[in-house]
Amino acid sequence: MTEAMIERIVLATKNNSIAPAQLGAWLMACQIRDLNEKETLFLTKHMIQSGEHFEASKLRVDKHSTGGVGDKMSLILAPCLHASGFVVPMLAGRGLAHTGGTIDKLESIPGFNTGLSMIEMQENPCFISRQTDQIAPTDKIMYATRDVTATVPCIGLITASIISKKAAEGLSKLVLDVKCGKAGFMTKIENARLLAKSMVRVSKSLGIETIAQITSMDEPIGNMIGNAHEVVESINCLKGVGPQDTMELVTMQAEALGCDVQTVIANGKALQCFKEMCLRQGVNSEVVEDLCNDPWSVLPKGVKRHEITAKTSGFIHHVDALAVGKILAQLGAGRLHPSDNISHGIGLEILAKKGQEVSKGETIAYLDVDHQQDVEKLFADVFEISPEDINIRTDSRLIEVVK
Amino acid sequence: MTEAMIERIVLATKNNSIAPAQLGAWLMACQIRDLNEKETLFLTKHMIQSGEHFEASKLRVDKHSTGGVGDKMSLILAPCLHASGFVVPMLAGRGLAHTGGTIDKLESIPGFNTGLSMIEMQENPCFISRQTDQIAPTDKIMYATRDVTATVPCIGLITASIISKKAAEGLSKLVLDVKCGKAGFMTKIENARLLAKSMVRVSKSLGIETIAQITSMDEPIGNMIGNAHEVVESINCLKGVGPQDTMELVTMQAEALGCDVQTVIANGKALQCFKEMCLRQGVNSEVVEDLCNDPWSVLPKGVKRHEITAKTSGFIHHVDALAVGKILAQLGAGRLHPSDNISHGIGLEILAKKGQEVSKGETIAYLDVDHQQDVEKLFADVFEISPEDINIRTDSRLIEVVK
Repeated sequence: MTEAMIERIVLATKNNSIAPAQLGAWLMACQIRDLNEKETLFLTKHMIQSGEHFEASKLRVDKHSTGGVGDKMSLILAPCLHASGFVVPMLAGRGLAHTGGTIDKLESIPGFNTGLSMIEMQENPCFISRQTDQIAPTDKIMYATRDVTATVPCIGLITASIISKKAAEGLSKLVLDVKCGKAGFMTKIENARLLAKSMVRVSKSLGIETIAQITSMDEPIGNMIGNAHEVVESINCLKGVGPQDTMELVTMQAEALGCDVQTVIANGKALQCFKEMCLRQGVNSEVVEDLCNDPWSVLPKGVKRHEITAKTSGFIHHVDALAVGKILAQLGAGRLHPSDNISHGIGLEILAKKGQEVSKGETIAYLDVDHQQDVEKLFADVFEISPEDINIRTDSRLIEVVK
Repeated sequence: MTEAMIERIVLATKNNSIAPAQLGAWLMACQIRDLNEKETLFLTKHMIQSGEHFEASKLRVDKHSTGGVGDKMSLILAPCLHASGFVVPMLAGRGLAHTGGTIDKLESIPGFNTGLSMIEMQENPCFISRQTDQIAPTDKIMYATRDVTATVPCIGLITASIISKKAAEGLSKLVLDVKCGKAGFMTKIENARLLAKSMVRVSKSLGIETIAQITSMDEPIGNMIGNAHEVVESINCLKGVGPQDTMELVTMQAEALGCDVQTVIANGKALQCFKEMCLRQGVNSEVVEDLCNDPWSVLPKGVKRHEITAKTSGFIHHVDALAVGKILAQLGAGRLHPSDNISHGIGLEILAKKGQEVSKGETIAYLDVDHQQDVEKLFADVFEISPEDINIRTDSRLIEVVK
């Protein structure tokens, strides 16, 4: 397709002048034949140009993750980057199916406004806010059609959708976390690599210094899964007491953007930046202090805590992130349909991760919900315990870097 | 795709419960990957079952042509078949772009009703009528979407569309005329062959004795092109004074169904059957008599006749059927859009066909229209005349038979 053809399709989509059947047919043609490098770049460019975008600046940096279970990196990374002197204009999304969303997590903080206007964003040195109708407006329409026409997995369309929104932020640097595994957007490494390469290529062509990190998404990230639960863990990370796998991911992403998280966490600047971000986005100053001193004093939490215990003694061979994500979504922590309401206080606290030795009957996780649940049945296949020690304690989640 | 999936799509299309974007996407997937033999058969079967159909009978026979320029065979063939003892339940269509349509041609006869009801068709031993909403109702909806989504040329979808309507007629035998050439539905022989094979296979699987004849569609068929013009030529054929190429096609098609046209034309039975068909379809008996004695006394004809003359002396190497079809459509004899009205009296009478020797200034065709036209400019590229004799007088139009 020529650039003129792609521009016409983007504009017709924006103006609602393309027949739905034609958009569906075009998306299916993209899905089956995929877009080549040029076509992907043209589509991305015209999706950016179809809406508003921020002036580019050397200081502006961001990251994007394709999403996973327990992926709370944005909440930790944004204040760390700002503490290092960067401007962070982070547009984020809500969760769907087994995958959590940064916006949902932040909305568990009382008063946190995730719907900043273009003007509010313009003057803000570090924010996390929802995608607006002004930025890449065609993406929303195209995605709604992709969602019902089996055309979500197309590499070219995914690339244009993600990079158009990020490039509109006016970034100089971008790090991409491409999740790969059972609970990732890509389940096969070949596809994760194709997507990573495509996104890096298009983003670089648009003048943004970009690298992608392909990381595993079979096991949940960190110990806390759920919306308020992940805010709690993020604050722990900003205080320097976060779990090892979570800190590994944050550190890698920050390093790719030229930021040293250890320093800004140790000197308290990162936590301070998190507090200021909350204040700027409408959270009351007392709530912010309470949130950082004793998170559960202000965050919602399921009133009924259930213990999940080890069925046998042995070593944890696998914690099934996909199953965890699905169970939590079904309990109300996530969405089965985009219009679903969610309960921010529902979540899981995992005590025993992959490689750890446990004894029969020992508590390996807590589930916080509002009503009595049959946790033994619900979690029957989540924790895989075997007698042999698999000698994994500090597994790196990094699979591959794509530059 | 499984039979159940295809059935669901056909029913959802019929009930309007499939989103247009989904139908568009599905059609594009069919277009790019095409349907295999089984899928094509399933689609055809469920398109038939989605509507009403006639009881099958040994006596019921029909033909289908993919359409061309001057293709008036149905008007001649139907009465010939009936004169030989067959029942002919012929559902036909209107013309579009450069291609004429049997229904349009018949509608140039004053009073001819092309919109018979299911009950009227049920009791009628030989008719030519429009496709009804009761027969293969999903085909109309699918075609409307195919038309705007670049999914018309898909062999599997074409097969299902054509064969579902023909099989619903309850036929025992079917002959298919697959036009191939510049002015045909298929321009390449490989594609014509694929379509012919696909249609023959599916039709046979449904229990219908079927053969396809691939015939050339570069030169116009016969000497008369236009709606009333082709009725005139059809009556000439039924009187035994039709042009050679037209009679060749009718004879081949009739033979494939076990009918000898020479006999029924010579003994007058074919013309009698044509008259009776007109009477049954609402034409006044006086009009029928006049139509067969002096066709132009009852048929509309453009009031302005233009002569087209040979620009040089030599042999006709080519009469461009596609150009003729386009010129006539543009002048109002055909439709540029499905909703266009047409003028039944506009048409062309060709005097010099391929292989014939002409002298500079000699009349080689007449154009009948309602207003003055610059025929020299309009027809500048239609007749190709060269000094060398190409020794073609009685070119067979048959390219290949597919059984």
